[in-house]
Amino acid sequence: MSRPGTARPAGGALPAGLAFRPAGASDWPLIWLFWRQVVAAGDTYCYDPAMGYQAGRQLWFGSPPDQVWLVTDGQDPATALGSYRLGPNKAGPGSHIGTASYMVSEAARGRGVGRAMVLHSLEQAGVAGYRGLQFNAVAASNVHAVRLYLDLGFTVIGTVPGGFRHPELGLVDLLIMFHEL
Amino acid sequence: MSRPGTARPAGGALPAGLAFRPAGASDWPLIWLFWRQVVAAGDTYCYDPAMGYQAGRQLWFGSPPDQVWLVTDGQDPATALGSYRLGPNKAGPGSHIGTASYMVSEAARGRGVGRAMVLHSLEQAGVAGYRGLQFNAVAASNVHAVRLYLDLGFTVIGTVPGGFRHPELGLVDLLIMFHEL
Repeated sequence: MSRPGTARPAGGALPAGLAFRPAGASDWPLIWLFWRQVVAAGDTYCYDPAMGYQAGRQLWFGSPPDQVWLVTDGQDPATALGSYRLGPNKAGPGSHIGTASYMVSEAARGRGVGRAMVLHSLEQAGVAGYRGLQFNAVAASNVHAVRLYLDLGFTVIGTVPGGFRHPELGLVDLLIMFHEL
Repeated sequence: MSRPGTARPAGGALPAGLAFRPAGASDWPLIWLFWRQVVAAGDTYCYDPAMGYQAGRQLWFGSPPDQVWLVTDGQDPATALGSYRLGPNKAGPGSHIGTASYMVSEAARGRGVGRAMVLHSLEQAGVAGYRGLQFNAVAASNVHAVRLYLDLGFTVIGTVPGGFRHPELGLVDLLIMFHEL
């Protein structure tokens, strides 16, 4: 049985200097610092790039049983390096499949934060009893993310042709990805 | 140029005795009569089968630019035969793809209400400027719906293995379907 707060051994050890903890609404000011930059860029997430502070918090924290995690610098717990959310992808007869979203601080790129979050979320999804983890909208142009997800065992189960309006590239495909649990 | 409120000629004429009109929140009592039965059955939609009156109204009417239509008996405009909702499938860079959901009154089965609504929604989606219409979660066991969508030009662009927990059949696949506009 795996323990919450640790990366699953199969995925490799947690990179040195990273720590996970559950996040609450009071952590939103920390998350918002990088979250808004990722969303405003409009090149990875299907969120309104102009979304404000309150709406963003509502979206990110959702409602039970959604959970939000924060990645901090192990040496400096007040420094947020990334955050992810995990919850049911659908309600009712679809609630046994989870979905997750990940945000990495620009300043923390290259430290393995994204990979650590995906591994952590797969573990947490298993703990929460989800039978699979589904990404509904991965921009095909987000090649780093796509490569990471494939590397961690996700497969592309569907493609929405031209489903993402990239600010520079125009219409690119949206990938739907899935990982059985 | 097609006119709102009429089925597109390519899909055949509107079946005799059916009429479409935009629905507002004040129509919810009429819609709720059959909507709650479809949702409570839990065998077609990924909605909470126990969803209540107010939560259902919020879900169905959503927020702008979502639109809701009502199908009535042409001879008796107070009788609701079906209703559908249409809106952006995603926000921001994904908002050019629409999504729609359809509910048919049990009492109105066999009158072509479902087919008329899908055709009407394709037309309205075009009027609203969507580039495609996407269904995120069609239970593979809902064979009538799948056959109808395929017949009207939708294709299966993805499959979530075991994504739907059918009350009698257990886990069945969820299909993701798409129609370019």
